[in-house]
Amino acid sequence: MPNTETKMPNLRRQIHQLVNHKYFTGTILGLIMFNAIIVGLETYPSIYESYKELFYLMDRALIWIFTVEIVLRMIAEKKFIHFFKNSWNWFDFLIVAAGHIFVGAHFVTVLRILRVLRVFRAISILPSLRKLVDALLLTIPALGNIMLLMSIIFYIFAVTGTMLFAEVAPEYFGSLQLSLLTLFQVVTLESWASGVMWPIFHELPWAWIYFVLFVLVGTFVIFNLFIGVIVSNVEKADAADKLEEPDQLAELRNEVKELKQLIINMSRDK
Amino acid sequence: MPNTETKMPNLRRQIHQLVNHKYFTGTILGLIMFNAIIVGLETYPSIYESYKELFYLMDRALIWIFTVEIVLRMIAEKKFIHFFKNSWNWFDFLIVAAGHIFVGAHFVTVLRILRVLRVFRAISILPSLRKLVDALLLTIPALGNIMLLMSIIFYIFAVTGTMLFAEVAPEYFGSLQLSLLTLFQVVTLESWASGVMWPIFHELPWAWIYFVLFVLVGTFVIFNLFIGVIVSNVEKADAADKLEEPDQLAELRNEVKELKQLIINMSRDK
Amino acid sequence: MPNTETKMPNLRRQIHQLVNHKYFTGTILGLIMFNAIIVGLETYPSIYESYKELFYLMDRALIWIFTVEIVLRMIAEKKFIHFFKNSWNWFDFLIVAAGHIFVGAHFVTVLRILRVLRVFRAISILPSLRKLVDALLLTIPALGNIMLLMSIIFYIFAVTGTMLFAEVAPEYFGSLQLSLLTLFQVVTLESWASGVMWPIFHELPWAWIYFVLFVLVGTFVIFNLFIGVIVSNVEKADAADKLEEPDQLAELRNEVKELKQLIINMSRDK
Amino acid sequence: MPNTETKMPNLRRQIHQLVNHKYFTGTILGLIMFNAIIVGLETYPSIYESYKELFYLMDRALIWIFTVEIVLRMIAEKKFIHFFKNSWNWFDFLIVAAGHIFVGAHFVTVLRILRVLRVFRAISILPSLRKLVDALLLTIPALGNIMLLMSIIFYIFAVTGTMLFAEVAPEYFGSLQLSLLTLFQVVTLESWASGVMWPIFHELPWAWIYFVLFVLVGTFVIFNLFIGVIVSNVEKADAADKLEEPDQLAELRNEVKELKQLIINMSRDK
Repeated sequence: MPNTETKMPNLRRQIHQLVNHKYFTGTILGLIMFNAIIVGLETYPSIYESYKELFYLMDRALIWIFTVEIVLRMIAEKKFIHFFKNSWNWFDFLIVAAGHIFVGAHFVTVLRILRVLRVFRAISILPSLRKLVDALLLTIPALGNIMLLMSIIFYIFAVTGTMLFAEVAPEYFGSLQLSLLTLFQVVTLESWASGVMWPIFHELPWAWIYFVLFVLVGTFVIFNLFIGVIVSNVEKADAADKLEEPDQLAELRNEVKELKQLIINMSRDK
Repeated sequence: MPNTETKMPNLRRQIHQLVNHKYFTGTILGLIMFNAIIVGLETYPSIYESYKELFYLMDRALIWIFTVEIVLRMIAEKKFIHFFKNSWNWFDFLIVAAGHIFVGAHFVTVLRILRVLRVFRAISILPSLRKLVDALLLTIPALGNIMLLMSIIFYIFAVTGTMLFAEVAPEYFGSLQLSLLTLFQVVTLESWASGVMWPIFHELPWAWIYFVLFVLVGTFVIFNLFIGVIVSNVEKADAADKLEEPDQLAELRNEVKELKQLIINMSRDK
Repeated sequence: MPNTETKMPNLRRQIHQLVNHKYFTGTILGLIMFNAIIVGLETYPSIYESYKELFYLMDRALIWIFTVEIVLRMIAEKKFIHFFKNSWNWFDFLIVAAGHIFVGAHFVTVLRILRVLRVFRAISILPSLRKLVDALLLTIPALGNIMLLMSIIFYIFAVTGTMLFAEVAPEYFGSLQLSLLTLFQVVTLESWASGVMWPIFHELPWAWIYFVLFVLVGTFVIFNLFIGVIVSNVEKADAADKLEEPDQLAELRNEVKELKQLIINMSRDK
Repeated sequence: MPNTETKMPNLRRQIHQLVNHKYFTGTILGLIMFNAIIVGLETYPSIYESYKELFYLMDRALIWIFTVEIVLRMIAEKKFIHFFKNSWNWFDFLIVAAGHIFVGAHFVTVLRILRVLRVFRAISILPSLRKLVDALLLTIPALGNIMLLMSIIFYIFAVTGTMLFAEVAPEYFGSLQLSLLTLFQVVTLESWASGVMWPIFHELPWAWIYFVLFVLVGTFVIFNLFIGVIVSNVEKADAADKLEEPDQLAELRNEVKELKQLIINMSRDK
């Protein structure tokens, strides 16, 4: 059957064209927005209770449409495996697949959250948003070292805080995980004094050292992280800017070289 | 009557001169400041009650003076329609027109707010402030994509928050619109822990994941928005700076070219 | 008596040398620090009550020493009036003069605050700090327009806020001045939601528009102010940097011109 | 015994190789992480009480392993004294030495904190983190002047605040040290209005001047500190960038000079 072999690529080409057509993308985006409106409406108990079955049907319809969409996009690729080379495709696949896996009476909350997460597919569908998120995620590895340092500082302060304040302020420093959460609150400068420090300070007057030190160290590290990212971005922009300039200089040098050659030839000619 | 035809432009020219005269602008600015003082004084009930009628008269006088001013500025233009090409003129027109439309016993609060908004006309009168606000507004389109992303994140977190916490914290997550307002508070880092998270955390110990995730994602996106604007501004400033330099290089290259031509001519002459 | 005439400049020169001697400056700095320690100790009631008279004597001694210092620095100038050309000297003079004017049993608090303000003289004595403060103050005029805009926004929101919320939240919006203070609190994002908005929101459900709008506008303007200052500073630094480079290009152009002249001369010579 | 003399360097070389071997560093890092886990587990009273002796033994083992490690690293140096030239080695030495000094039944809390601080050794072991912390610490001297200025401002406001508000708000301004802590809270903008200002404001209506002034001055200085660091970093990055460019121009000038020489030679040759 060499017939099927030649037919298949034709079918694939057509699907490829369909999948990349602007109306196809537009329809999917419209369905994602429709999905977003549905999950929004579902949060109103009165509406949800009245149209419970309608919501269920629409959700079932949406998940099957999205499934068909993803299967079509898989077929459109030369090989199935190519589809999974793009991490955004992985994201789309997992969001939709999970909707099938968790179906059933159990895990209602998980299912509903998955339905909400489908709204994130708007990012993977819109190229400009996809680029923006890719760019945002690319800044994370550059922050790796400073985040490791921050983790060490957090861990040490959390252990020390639990040791020192577990009995005085069990609601903030009762256990290691609670201390980590409290320190995260302190580093955002939210109620670090009024909520956390003063009550402890009235019991243990030396407690201010711990908090002032952590606020100074924490904000100093975040401040430097901030500056580091700004400077590296300005540098990158400058570097992209400079790519043209050397060309100008290089051309100028070429012309001067030609000039030199001309004069040398002249003096030889004589 | 060709007489009127030639008279009209003369009248228009005189009005044009009048409208653009510095004393005219100064007088309007003075009246805007007078308007500002009046609306300020009106907020004191004792003063307002004593001079209620005087305030009313002054307000009527001001709105008619501003109306005359705008009509004069309309006449000063070649055609009426030219006046509306400038969005600041639209702003002036709407502020004054609304003062006529809403007049009467009803909508007292709307009328009073309109009277306060007239103070904003100080911006449209002062060229330096107008430029500044134009520049500020110009930075908004550049933020379009990141604001769309922020909206998606806000919406998804608001729907999830309503689903998860509507029963535990109805004062913060009781409905979708309430959740959006709460998330706006959280992203400004205001009482996000002491006010919003801790009470929920004591009921649902896994609630910290939601809040820490939102604080991290929200501040990370805002932080990148911030850096993006700084970098693009530094770049723009750099680009404006570089405009002269290439000229220098270009002139230099021209001179080298002339030199080359001279030498080529010399060698031909021989 | 031409004798005195020639003697006077000698005396002035000696005083000039004395006043600018590093030991003189060091002594004054030491006395300022001593003054700082005294005003610090005075805040402890137990210490102050025990040594009340000693503190009084030391203060009297210090003010006379500072008076003599300033008189010496005045004499050291060519003319008295030169002393007042420097605004830091004005600052020193006023701080010390006020100490003499307000002396007496009345205005005890004013006098004590003046004594504390004398510590600021450390800035006028240390050249590095003086430069830093001069640099900081120089950034203020550049912020003029944006601060004028901020004032207009503050005023309009304060008047509107007083009109709308004076009855619901008299402790925050009871009068125009109170509203301005509350808005200053809101723009620093301190308890703007938990303290100010929520209680009003529960009475007037549309109140969130006012607060969200003010937070967005306020932080947006401050954010742009921030960026403007960064960009203008980076530009300034770049401009200072570029001063050398154009020289290089200019020299290069000069050399190319000389070359051209040489060749033109050559072709003429033939 | 010239034998030992030649043997010793060999031994030192072997130890040097051992100490710098990646498995050695890896093992130490693993032990530091093991130490971190232990101090974390110790904060859970139930676990600590059950395995009290095991924890004690592991801690003893760890401190002796770290002691041996540091002794080995000392021997690996050409001279003992070389070891102390690096401040990170000082840090390692003090952390481990203190663990021996404070051993015993007393100072249990100090000992436990020391055990936690040993986790900081992860920074001195990982070269990338060591570089990062070195870079962070290098930015501090540049902030010297602005921090001195900040200290003067803090001190003056603390003394004034204690003088003015000690009786009205003893919990915030009861003494000089308490005022300094409160001002630190105010400068982080944490509850500066809701917690600190409003209660005082209701007693002393002019108190807002003090707080608004301090918030404006404090944030303005920090804001400028921030900008200064950003600009100096961008400049530094630019300077490093510019190092190549002048070379290009210099080479160009050299070539033009050669050209000139060629032409001068030509005209002479004629």
